[in-house]
Amino acid sequence: MSVFTPPKRTLMGPGPSDVPERILEAMSQPTIGHFDPAFQGLMDDIKGLLKYAFRTENALTFPLSAPGSAGMECCFVNLLEPGDKAVVCRNGVFGGRMIENVERCGAIAVVVESDWGEPVDPGLLEETLKDHPDAKLVAFVQAETSTGVSSDAKTLCRIAREHDCLTVVDAVTSLGGTPLEVDKWGIDAVYSGSQKCLSCPPGLSPVSFSERALDAIRNRKTKVQSWFLDLSLVMDYWDGAGGRTYHHTAPVNAMYGLHESLCILKEEGLEEAWARHRTMHEKLRDGLEDMGLELLVKPDYRLPQLNTVKIPDHVTDEAALRKRLLEEFNLEIGAGLGALAGKVWRLGLMGHSARQENVELCLGALRRVLN
Amino acid sequence: MSVFTPPKRTLMGPGPSDVPERILEAMSQPTIGHFDPAFQGLMDDIKGLLKYAFRTENALTFPLSAPGSAGMECCFVNLLEPGDKAVVCRNGVFGGRMIENVERCGAIAVVVESDWGEPVDPGLLEETLKDHPDAKLVAFVQAETSTGVSSDAKTLCRIAREHDCLTVVDAVTSLGGTPLEVDKWGIDAVYSGSQKCLSCPPGLSPVSFSERALDAIRNRKTKVQSWFLDLSLVMDYWDGAGGRTYHHTAPVNAMYGLHESLCILKEEGLEEAWARHRTMHEKLRDGLEDMGLELLVKPDYRLPQLNTVKIPDHVTDEAALRKRLLEEFNLEIGAGLGALAGKVWRLGLMGHSARQENVELCLGALRRVLN
Repeated sequence: MSVFTPPKRTLMGPGPSDVPERILEAMSQPTIGHFDPAFQGLMDDIKGLLKYAFRTENALTFPLSAPGSAGMECCFVNLLEPGDKAVVCRNGVFGGRMIENVERCGAIAVVVESDWGEPVDPGLLEETLKDHPDAKLVAFVQAETSTGVSSDAKTLCRIAREHDCLTVVDAVTSLGGTPLEVDKWGIDAVYSGSQKCLSCPPGLSPVSFSERALDAIRNRKTKVQSWFLDLSLVMDYWDGAGGRTYHHTAPVNAMYGLHESLCILKEEGLEEAWARHRTMHEKLRDGLEDMGLELLVKPDYRLPQLNTVKIPDHVTDEAALRKRLLEEFNLEIGAGLGALAGKVWRLGLMGHSARQENVELCLGALRRVLN
Repeated sequence: MSVFTPPKRTLMGPGPSDVPERILEAMSQPTIGHFDPAFQGLMDDIKGLLKYAFRTENALTFPLSAPGSAGMECCFVNLLEPGDKAVVCRNGVFGGRMIENVERCGAIAVVVESDWGEPVDPGLLEETLKDHPDAKLVAFVQAETSTGVSSDAKTLCRIAREHDCLTVVDAVTSLGGTPLEVDKWGIDAVYSGSQKCLSCPPGLSPVSFSERALDAIRNRKTKVQSWFLDLSLVMDYWDGAGGRTYHHTAPVNAMYGLHESLCILKEEGLEEAWARHRTMHEKLRDGLEDMGLELLVKPDYRLPQLNTVKIPDHVTDEAALRKRLLEEFNLEIGAGLGALAGKVWRLGLMGHSARQENVELCLGALRRVLN
């Protein structure tokens, strides 16, 4: 077997995003044991930095040792018990995945449907909660990666609270890219991914849980159906107070990388990172519109970090165009997903990918292949 | 925040083991997309190399994007449905974890108990299966990391087959270190970890499933309770035939590392790797016995890669000794787990850690701190 040497790509799809050299170097440092005192220190630092990124004081804030889809599952299996009712807002692929998760917990999913490309409708959520006063939680995706739509997390959380529901928020694509205020908005459970606006390789899912969420977990009548994701066990592994308890073995080197990425985020400043994503989005948007391309999502609720572009009518084989971008320009952009497959491209400007040179490369390459 | 610089340790605990420079370098290569054709090629290569390591032709052989404990859970949630009966053999911590997993699937665990430090008793398994002709599967740990005991996987699988049961085998510590014959022994589901005898950083769980296991999954009456671990979805992500379907985002850089580690294993040769583990174990054992130290496990079923040493009576604070080994010699050894806490040390000789210089360092350092 020969050593695998990956091509050098520019990553402007829906994730992973470009990983800075600093993070790759951090990840290649020697592996240490997961009970090494030095690793304990790293875990504490990561927890502190994640609190900064999530804007929370939640004690239970840490990266789960698995990708974002496990982070989603972790929220539902811990907060739901068989027979519970959950209101799930669906306006794209990931809301649909939430419904799957709810049902696999033996719980009942009440679905608030919005069109793909539209945000979750707060009025519809309110009506649904009036019809279902026994709902235990409300779940929605803040930044729908499948459509490029931002939903109004602050308002949705307020409505959920008014109806005494816990909230589960998918922040996979928002964390580090657009405003997310876990404490101010009263979010109870939130999960993200390492490979989007944090610019790490994929594999980790930062999560955070409020005291209200922990109360719900403490008051469970049944065991969490997943041993691996059972927070009552995982928190004893991540909590340094009184000694950590063995649960699983954390992905040590991936943690080095996440730590470095969070240091980079703090050096830049969270609000400065949000502003950079917005600025780069505006440059990309202007260039796309100059070329006569149209964005799927209305300006009011467009995600700066995930730009969904309608594929022009004259393009008969969009996959061939993406292949040319990859082969001739080493540029990866994203295909449409689900109902939008073949209809849109998804141009990611996430984390380290939200840079002037990426915007120029993307616009230049698109100009070439569309002519 | 300052950059985290881990100390340079020699890892001789129960895992992670020492990670060769080649693997760390492979992991620090640029991240590419998980639908990049180059990544598809890498996935295919990894599947082929894992088949070599597991000694199997099973089509469904791949690394799960999460640690070994998720690999364990994956086996149980896919093979068991509520009300099913599973015979679980327990002779250490990880058999106990299996019972937890079975019960969280709503299934019934019938436990075959053996003493800690002893292998699973095939006679007792046979009796139990006679008493429970409705059992669907038999689960056991081939290499108990908590005690250093090797159970006779070949015989246990034969007995399970004779009673028409599926087998789930924990090979977390055995894969790449001691003989494991998935096809010859008729194992139906097996999981391992990247951080033991494969010498990768932790985070991935190689798994393999037989056609019989797949039939059982195809004939399920209920959905798998975990969306993240549902093999009917995961296999469409890993299977290149007819195009892959998006499920989660694979940990791209961790896969680079696993690929490199499997290349190293193939270069050395699987049987040569087994022989090396045995030779290094003999050297370590001889040295320990020369110092008057005693191994917990009888020679017949000792794991070469995980040596459980009884802590001498005169040692009153064993944790302080391990601390000295770490601080003065940068040497990590493992503490006892569960019933063996405070009574034994666990000396790992796994993968790249199974080297002459590690044996010498360990013996020399132990000599210093015990005098």
